Amino acid sequence: MTATVHTLHPGAPTPSLDPLVSLIASDMNQVNSVILARMQSEVPLIPELAGHLIAGGGKRMRPMLTLACARLLGYGGTRHHTLAATVEFIHTATLLHDDVVDGSGMRRGKRTANLIWGNPATVLVGDFLFSRSFELMVEDGSLRVLRILSGASAIIAEGEVAQLTAQRRIETDEDRYLQIIDAKTAALFAAACRIAAVVAERNEEDELALDSYGRNLGIAFQLVDDAIDYASDGTTMGKDTGDDFRDGKVTLPVILAHARGDEVQRRFWKDAIEGRRTSDADLAHAIELLEQTGAVADTLARARHYGQRAIAALGRFPDGRAKSALIEAVEFAVARAY
Amino acid sequence: MTATVHTLHPGAPTPSLDPLVSLIASDMNQVNSVILARMQSEVPLIPELAGHLIAGGGKRMRPMLTLACARLLGYGGTRHHTLAATVEFIHTATLLHDDVVDGSGMRRGKRTANLIWGNPATVLVGDFLFSRSFELMVEDGSLRVLRILSGASAIIAEGEVAQLTAQRRIETDEDRYLQIIDAKTAALFAAACRIAAVVAERNEEDELALDSYGRNLGIAFQLVDDAIDYASDGTTMGKDTGDDFRDGKVTLPVILAHARGDEVQRRFWKDAIEGRRTSDADLAHAIELLEQTGAVADTLARARHYGQRAIAALGRFPDGRAKSALIEAVEFAVARAY
Repeated sequence: MTATVHTLHPGAPTPSLDPLVSLIASDMNQVNSVILARMQSEVPLIPELAGHLIAGGGKRMRPMLTLACARLLGYGGTRHHTLAATVEFIHTATLLHDDVVDGSGMRRGKRTANLIWGNPATVLVGDFLFSRSFELMVEDGSLRVLRILSGASAIIAEGEVAQLTAQRRIETDEDRYLQIIDAKTAALFAAACRIAAVVAERNEEDELALDSYGRNLGIAFQLVDDAIDYASDGTTMGKDTGDDFRDGKVTLPVILAHARGDEVQRRFWKDAIEGRRTSDADLAHAIELLEQTGAVADTLARARHYGQRAIAALGRFPDGRAKSALIEAVEFAVARAY
Repeated sequence: MTATVHTLHPGAPTPSLDPLVSLIASDMNQVNSVILARMQSEVPLIPELAGHLIAGGGKRMRPMLTLACARLLGYGGTRHHTLAATVEFIHTATLLHDDVVDGSGMRRGKRTANLIWGNPATVLVGDFLFSRSFELMVEDGSLRVLRILSGASAIIAEGEVAQLTAQRRIETDEDRYLQIIDAKTAALFAAACRIAAVVAERNEEDELALDSYGRNLGIAFQLVDDAIDYASDGTTMGKDTGDDFRDGKVTLPVILAHARGDEVQRRFWKDAIEGRRTSDADLAHAIELLEQTGAVADTLARARHYGQRAIAALGRFPDGRAKSALIEAVEFAVARAY
């Protein structure tokens, strides 16, 4: 498989996260200070384990969104630094628990915390970060922000359980799958953007527009991630290719390929998702079927659809550097695959 | 070992939780309604798994304390129903995660959720309950309550990690152990009591007095639990006797017996805690040493000390049915052993 770039605007230069990163670079230094200061504890294992993941080269996508949305709205205060750190703590807590749940071995190109420190410590440090995130929100003092983020947290957990329930069930359909990623991934993207409107004291329409931007971006992001899991190059994003396949996760590429397959192919997908075909040869065959049936291409087409909706949601906000960076972030998200 | 009752007032009738239970019986019905309504989800596994533990015959000690303290202060509203449910959700979430961390098989005389549904579902449903507890607090709308409970949650998680770090380390001393149980157990007892003063709009002295009552009761409670783990009768509290022993948990009985032992005994404790002596015969020998060195008796004496401090903290509040019930709850807590 070769590296094809799928942009929303064919012919345009390859989109990048750089404009977003440089837009909020000095804000992000503040956020990093908050993160470092507030992941400390008298119990040394906590900063050690949390730091492994937090310092471990993530893109800080969600806090970047909080900062950039605040910039879009011309917010001039400092509350978004604390709240962006809060969002990153929630995200980190869910990643730690995800790794325990999936029994993952690699994330962002590094060994996962559960592999190094074991499941018990990983579960408990996740709990600590989650509690700490609420402490930070309470320090900020906005009940509206608390409502948005506590609601998102409950929805994320619900989505994770729903995903677990759908695991190894080839009957999972596209609607169900979209509900799951809306909850487990898009809800936090949406909340990260929406809280910027709260700190900037904007009206509910602005809140909902940023919620929609974040939610659609989050769905696009997850769809592309799910496609990347079947990329033939195992180094992409530091994740192991085929993790979802081996875990029996029913993602959109699989749903589409299964729906379009003949009887023999559908039997293959059922066997694979139920855990009876997990060899490297099976994975290679799965990748072949995904290509053959256009399932990967169509997953990426769906991602572009949600990307377009994300960009449309920004329509009400003034043009400028922040808006351009947020738009290019969407284009980057959908262009990552392969 | 025979059933000896250790009361704060020798000669008095055996203390019971009944006065506390009947004091808040109608309030507790309201709390149970909130709990049942708010553990629901469109994802059926969530109420199924959560309900197994929540309906599973726990004493609801912490929400009872919130309700009884509110009664002590003459509070006449309904906010304490929501907040007591919140406290129970936090507690349930930590129990679910504890069972995963310890790999426990039995709790309250039933198979644990992780044994029935597996670790992944148990971790995630714990996360859901924890998030839901914050949603409930946000609905209540008091930033002061949010501060108390989010702070307690972070301290609990810190205490759990500290306990994990101390596990299998015979060097853990009494001070360190007390710090750990103050965090992992007493912090939530303290918060459960303290928030009653917030909803009753009392001053900080009243808040701190109830905090002290709950904290000291919590420590007493945990000390007695740790002694019970070495009771010879495996049916006590539905917990398996010797769980702590086999998990290499350094609790006060062990700390005292180790400190008082001769060289051979200290070698035994080191081997046991480091996991090289975990047979039934080893456990029987451990129980013998605990008796011989007076370690169990002194653990219970420590529990009575904290119990007395809990009762003293109630001094500022008016005598009456609520105060008597709260005092008897302390006497019950320290009299449970053996």
